[in-house]
Amino acid sequence: MERALISEFTGICAHHGDPSVLVGIGDDCAVIAPAQGENLLITTDALVEGIHFDLSYFDPFYLGRKTAGVNLSDIAAMGGIPRWAFLSIALPLDMEHKRQFARRFGLGLASKLSAYGASLVGGDTVGTRNAMTVTLILIGETRQQRALLRSKAKARDLIYCSGYLGESATGLLLLKHISSKRPGRHRYCPQGPGRLLPRAARRRLIEHHLDPEPRVELGRALADSGLVHCCIDISDGVATDLAHICEESRVGANIYGEAIPVSRAMLSGLRFLRSQGVMEGNVSPVRLALTGGEDFELLWTVPAAHATRIEALAARILGYRPFRIGEITSGDRVMLKDRLGTQDITFKGYEH
Amino acid sequence: MERALISEFTGICAHHGDPSVLVGIGDDCAVIAPAQGENLLITTDALVEGIHFDLSYFDPFYLGRKTAGVNLSDIAAMGGIPRWAFLSIALPLDMEHKRQFARRFGLGLASKLSAYGASLVGGDTVGTRNAMTVTLILIGETRQQRALLRSKAKARDLIYCSGYLGESATGLLLLKHISSKRPGRHRYCPQGPGRLLPRAARRRLIEHHLDPEPRVELGRALADSGLVHCCIDISDGVATDLAHICEESRVGANIYGEAIPVSRAMLSGLRFLRSQGVMEGNVSPVRLALTGGEDFELLWTVPAAHATRIEALAARILGYRPFRIGEITSGDRVMLKDRLGTQDITFKGYEH
Repeated sequence: MERALISEFTGICAHHGDPSVLVGIGDDCAVIAPAQGENLLITTDALVEGIHFDLSYFDPFYLGRKTAGVNLSDIAAMGGIPRWAFLSIALPLDMEHKRQFARRFGLGLASKLSAYGASLVGGDTVGTRNAMTVTLILIGETRQQRALLRSKAKARDLIYCSGYLGESATGLLLLKHISSKRPGRHRYCPQGPGRLLPRAARRRLIEHHLDPEPRVELGRALADSGLVHCCIDISDGVATDLAHICEESRVGANIYGEAIPVSRAMLSGLRFLRSQGVMEGNVSPVRLALTGGEDFELLWTVPAAHATRIEALAARILGYRPFRIGEITSGDRVMLKDRLGTQDITFKGYEH
Repeated sequence: MERALISEFTGICAHHGDPSVLVGIGDDCAVIAPAQGENLLITTDALVEGIHFDLSYFDPFYLGRKTAGVNLSDIAAMGGIPRWAFLSIALPLDMEHKRQFARRFGLGLASKLSAYGASLVGGDTVGTRNAMTVTLILIGETRQQRALLRSKAKARDLIYCSGYLGESATGLLLLKHISSKRPGRHRYCPQGPGRLLPRAARRRLIEHHLDPEPRVELGRALADSGLVHCCIDISDGVATDLAHICEESRVGANIYGEAIPVSRAMLSGLRFLRSQGVMEGNVSPVRLALTGGEDFELLWTVPAAHATRIEALAARILGYRPFRIGEITSGDRVMLKDRLGTQDITFKGYEH
């Protein structure tokens, strides 16, 4: 059983051309030769069935891509280059079509990793009586002293983020709504009907949830600039992730509600969900954008003196100007300011 | 919840004196500075509740030590030096006393890691609706070209192992028997009654299962000698682990039943289990030693010309001579030879 599964993963290990991988799958350990003079970045993120994903709307291929994406995003947030991945997967003992699942999952994982220059080089396959758990370990490289940390924000830094927020959370609500309406039809299919919600918007929101884009190139450019104080990826929502920066850097932050980037696709999605009775009318788009989580955009802080240069640098990579959403303060809380007043939103983020 | 748990693990992270750890727990990634000119060894092993362990007989402290031990053993089998560990733990959402569990588990994990020069530097904590899953990632260092692989065995090499086999499997049977007899009394306590089985034997067998000793020093010495062709740790039993060597090296092996090391403690344990009706009378100690698994002794192959030097080297570290149990052949199967004849035992090992 386990050997058959491992052979599925071995088949899609794509490190054959990588001279840094001396031994891949098939020995007690993998053996790699890191570049001289680089530091290593190591991250691990686990996805648990029923908590982080549900197979009623997650195709194994996309689950593989998302598993890679959330880990790639951590390397991006440090400004590193993703290199070597290790998969530890616990599959239910009574699961049907286990090898087919492994193949599709592995193909998704490998396709996402390779798009960012990383490859799967080892791991572990175990059985479980219950929910599937997928754990990826990703190792990246970074030039010495260049990693972007959470602990270096300074009062008066400007706060930027790299893209629209809340799209992933809206996509998840759409997926749950679609799969509850059509219980016989498992898995998301981009060709589904969408009279009430434009097809492009639906597709964008759902893909944002299933297959988020880690900002690896942007992270590297921010790190190489040497001008950015602090960076994090938005996995739990700005309210929580910015609170991590404030805690580690011993600062506070003001966020301006009017500056939070919400997309037209997200507004359409929320209108559709309200029309279906899925969402209550009083959930504001800005609130969802700040607390929804899983957008995997980068959030960084930069002194005002360098802000224009960094804006231009980010715009060249993103194809649009990044969004300035607030500034670091000498306080110790994350405050949301808008027309209605000021609220403390420290750690008011998404919990799975 | 998750932040409280992480703070438990942060508290026991013992890398504060290690200059190679530039950033530990608390950022998107850990940042480490590996030594120049070394290769990295990376291994990951997951333990699933109900499959690999049962909390009715596994104290959290020992579960932590075992989690470290099985991963340390993989580094030992490659002849490496264990350095940096990352923990990914999925705890049931409805679990009681989660912080206490995390503290005791973390203390066990850290105590075992630090005894071998490694430390916990990062990880991930998630919730699950079902069984606990514990995944450790361990990174070690090894001198270039010195890692002991599975793929280098040659016909006529002699096969050695570093200790008695089958003790862990016997210890597990004892633990299950004890916890089934005393359902009100959770967890193993070394002071339990043992009229029918000498206390020292019971303790040895149970500790062998709960807290196996990874042969890190021996593995390094074997690798440094430059004379050993091949090495693996015995996690699934000789029949399976030696089959991995044969598969990767394209060779076969003869194992001599009379040469398999079975301890007096194990024979006492099996006698006791038979007297309690737990085991059928016809399970031979040698069979259990070859297929029981989880002994975490090292098995290595060495050309006959160097065998005496390596025996002496291993004896200095172990305190006793290692056991010569067979030899590599030009075939492709693992054959057991004893007074009763010859049997093919390829991959007839332990499956969890």
